[in-house]
Amino acid sequence: MQGVGCARLHAVQLMPNGAHALIRTLVDAGITTCFTNPGTSEIHFVAALDSVPEMRAVLTLFEGVATGAADGYARMADAPGATLLHLGPGLGNGLANLHNARRARVPVVNIVGDHATYHGQHDPPLQSDIETAARNVSAWVRTSRKTEELARDALDAIGAALGPPGQVATLIVPADVSWQEGAESASPHEPAAPSAVSADTIEVIATALRDGRRTGILLGGHALRECGLLAAAQIAAATGTKLFAEVFPARLERGVGLPPVERLLYWPELAARQLQGLECLILVGAQMPVTFFAYPGERSSLVPSGCEVHELSPAASDVLRSLEALVEALDAATAAPALQPRSVPRPPKGRLTAEKVCQAIGVVLPEGAIVSDEAITSGAALPAATRGAPRHDWLTLTGGAIGQGLPVAVGAAIARPDRPVIALEADGSALYTIQSLWTMAREQLDVTVVIFNNRTYGILDVELQRLDGLRAGRNARSLLDLGNPNIEFVKLAGGLGVPSRRVDTAEQLTLALEQSIADPGPHLIEVVVPPIASPIPRSGSG
Amino acid sequence: MQGVGCARLHAVQLMPNGAHALIRTLVDAGITTCFTNPGTSEIHFVAALDSVPEMRAVLTLFEGVATGAADGYARMADAPGATLLHLGPGLGNGLANLHNARRARVPVVNIVGDHATYHGQHDPPLQSDIETAARNVSAWVRTSRKTEELARDALDAIGAALGPPGQVATLIVPADVSWQEGAESASPHEPAAPSAVSADTIEVIATALRDGRRTGILLGGHALRECGLLAAAQIAAATGTKLFAEVFPARLERGVGLPPVERLLYWPELAARQLQGLECLILVGAQMPVTFFAYPGERSSLVPSGCEVHELSPAASDVLRSLEALVEALDAATAAPALQPRSVPRPPKGRLTAEKVCQAIGVVLPEGAIVSDEAITSGAALPAATRGAPRHDWLTLTGGAIGQGLPVAVGAAIARPDRPVIALEADGSALYTIQSLWTMAREQLDVTVVIFNNRTYGILDVELQRLDGLRAGRNARSLLDLGNPNIEFVKLAGGLGVPSRRVDTAEQLTLALEQSIADPGPHLIEVVVPPIASPIPRSGSG
Repeated sequence: MQGVGCARLHAVQLMPNGAHALIRTLVDAGITTCFTNPGTSEIHFVAALDSVPEMRAVLTLFEGVATGAADGYARMADAPGATLLHLGPGLGNGLANLHNARRARVPVVNIVGDHATYHGQHDPPLQSDIETAARNVSAWVRTSRKTEELARDALDAIGAALGPPGQVATLIVPADVSWQEGAESASPHEPAAPSAVSADTIEVIATALRDGRRTGILLGGHALRECGLLAAAQIAAATGTKLFAEVFPARLERGVGLPPVERLLYWPELAARQLQGLECLILVGAQMPVTFFAYPGERSSLVPSGCEVHELSPAASDVLRSLEALVEALDAATAAPALQPRSVPRPPKGRLTAEKVCQAIGVVLPEGAIVSDEAITSGAALPAATRGAPRHDWLTLTGGAIGQGLPVAVGAAIARPDRPVIALEADGSALYTIQSLWTMAREQLDVTVVIFNNRTYGILDVELQRLDGLRAGRNARSLLDLGNPNIEFVKLAGGLGVPSRRVDTAEQLTLALEQSIADPGPHLIEVVVPPIASPIPRSGSG
Repeated sequence: MQGVGCARLHAVQLMPNGAHALIRTLVDAGITTCFTNPGTSEIHFVAALDSVPEMRAVLTLFEGVATGAADGYARMADAPGATLLHLGPGLGNGLANLHNARRARVPVVNIVGDHATYHGQHDPPLQSDIETAARNVSAWVRTSRKTEELARDALDAIGAALGPPGQVATLIVPADVSWQEGAESASPHEPAAPSAVSADTIEVIATALRDGRRTGILLGGHALRECGLLAAAQIAAATGTKLFAEVFPARLERGVGLPPVERLLYWPELAARQLQGLECLILVGAQMPVTFFAYPGERSSLVPSGCEVHELSPAASDVLRSLEALVEALDAATAAPALQPRSVPRPPKGRLTAEKVCQAIGVVLPEGAIVSDEAITSGAALPAATRGAPRHDWLTLTGGAIGQGLPVAVGAAIARPDRPVIALEADGSALYTIQSLWTMAREQLDVTVVIFNNRTYGILDVELQRLDGLRAGRNARSLLDLGNPNIEFVKLAGGLGVPSRRVDTAEQLTLALEQSIADPGPHLIEVVVPPIASPIPRSGSG
């Protein structure tokens, strides 16, 4: 992640034991929060916590909450998120949300406890190959072998996490490396600077933008933050190009006064229409657009045939400087970027549908809100309903591994206690990491959770409808059905300590949202809505 | 797993598409249940389900439930458990309970959907290195590359899972391998026979058993089933040796009329006392006993210094035949094994403690019960309270990755619908895979769940007390504390469709247990109990 304030990594002093040194090193490098569910192999870390009171350890009931919260924290704090996990199984439980963080290029440092260095050879029950599991998500993996090297290893992990680009770094810490004394200070290293984009690349892309073809600019990563958006919008204004955002941004700044961008849609038929007719596409911090899944007989790429593609700013480069250089090359510094005017949907009325819930969100969304969006199919109307809301941040399901939205809301609320967090959750996704609610209650986080309870895995329903040659039978349908029995989120929230209510009309919902947002601390609102109709055109390519 | 009825793997016929062939192959090889949470990459498997109605697909709300249920199913069905999982993140979510299955040598076949073979190169959001994550838990991993080879690959996976010993096999199935037509039949292979133990080994061990030293026999795996126990008890009776069971058996048959065995205890100080003074130890289907975790200055091994160790029956060998050969060598076939007489605790009264809950379980435990025991510290009194109960099976947390007990109960109940299942759950462990309750409700499984709610991670409390040099502060303590807010399991169960109640006295508990066991379908009983006192002797070695 770029623009990290805490990036200078300080030297650490001689410490009593490894665990203390590790925490001190993390804190001195700017990591002051870790999300955890510890076990016996981490007990020395736990015991050392009170000797470094700057470290806030946040308990989660399940590691998937911890890793998702570290991701959400990093997205909003612009500093690495950190976890403390219990051996291979603890890491395993956190893997899905680490996958999401990896895909989002979010810096996360995992500290994974392991058996003492001499204990694993006896093959005790919790022994497993942690490094192997870690590699699925981590660009950097190391097992610390000596207490004297633990501080250095921790600084290396932080450096790796910061990148650029941001990535997941996993440091495995055997119990004896934690408990032994004699930890030593480590020399700090300057964070790596993002690479500069060559003048040639800038010139080639400036030329492409000037030549009058139908051109789109696809923004991703840090290009979706204010400075990047403003530069991109000047380029768009000066050259008549259209701005798009990647389908699932880690953090999109949007709302009144910011340049609006059209997010690519999830469904390949719809995304293909958005890009239809483009003769040139410029990637800025975004990957080549591709369908989420493959379909028989269909292309994976979403780039129209014959469309020329340029990459302005690859992952490890400085997106903002690249955009500024392009503004300069195009002489666009005085161009007036298009900015989003205020617009609010009409307050919805009557019996609830998913679309009306989205409109109600648009009506109430407060200034400075952080939205964690995992509403999946029920959230189709959210971008339109909220685009003219006061300025806010939009965090999405970056890697497609569901169960991310509630944990990300936990982390975002801890990173930014000054801002209201709204978590928009599909029922199926919420149930993956429902334990998040308890951490919201314990930490009294200012999160309003809205559960879109459509009692189905809606996305699979659409996919099953595609397979029209195979008429789905009872067994197949039962695997998409979240009714029988119906899940009552009001009870689940109550059991986990979060005040909750279910609303049945749009008017009740708007009122409940306003009250929840006004009242600090966590709240959950459950709405039961019908599944949306399939958005795939019947005559479409699927 | 040995003694599997479905072990002969039949040839499959020409099939319309890969998904259909895969399901047909699984069913023909005796895998008729799979636990799943599918996604788009598995949609062709889902769509094909109704064309092979012998396959029962059980929906879980989270993959950790699916993998734990497959483990519980396999333990009770004596056939491989199967899962259908969604790419790397779905496998990741299931990793912890696959770890438990691996440690228990339970045969599990995972089918993991992946992107189409040509799609991964585009690096779509859900792309990850599935094989790497799978290796953490799987002895066998393969990605099926061609529809024509899918049936053969599935048979290889089943063969690998069956072992011996039983193990986890993971078959990764790209979406296009599922959806393409042209699947071909595969030649069945005979399951591998367990290896025979040499006559020399038998003779060496028989000699050791005859020589009059203080000897123990540590039983594990299939030695803890009826035939193994009876043979071991004859050997014990003939030679004056003592029988022990491994600390966490996958499945221990016990109760009235079966030979009683003393399970090793979790805490190293207590386990060391159990084995104290032994001059010879015979391992029968069990690993060398070792502490769960290492402690500063303590040995990892639990075998007394100078104690001679013999292994009668390594993992891949036929435990039962080895024991029978040893019975013969010792001329012990006519020895009368010690058998457990009926004994029931006195019905507990008054305010509940963890020990009284264990006694109440002992009072009500019905004939043929299957107990899934993840009560952790609160269950310390269970072995004594239930040893004289009617014959039953006891399934434990084999790999130490918590969150196993409720899923195992799901799988056991589906494998044996004729028998009542009792799930004894610690609060912290239950919360890892609480979604299990919904599958119990949907499938109307005959499971009585008892939540020992002591509002703490009790095991960590004991560990923190060990570190007396470091007085635990507020931050450290908060990471063990499951109060603030208190978790209400009655509401959680209600939200997931399981009838539930909380009881406050021992009399109410006994009544509630009797009623729940008598009434088919799932029930949850919550008891709030104080944490147990530390079982570690103050003058102990910790």
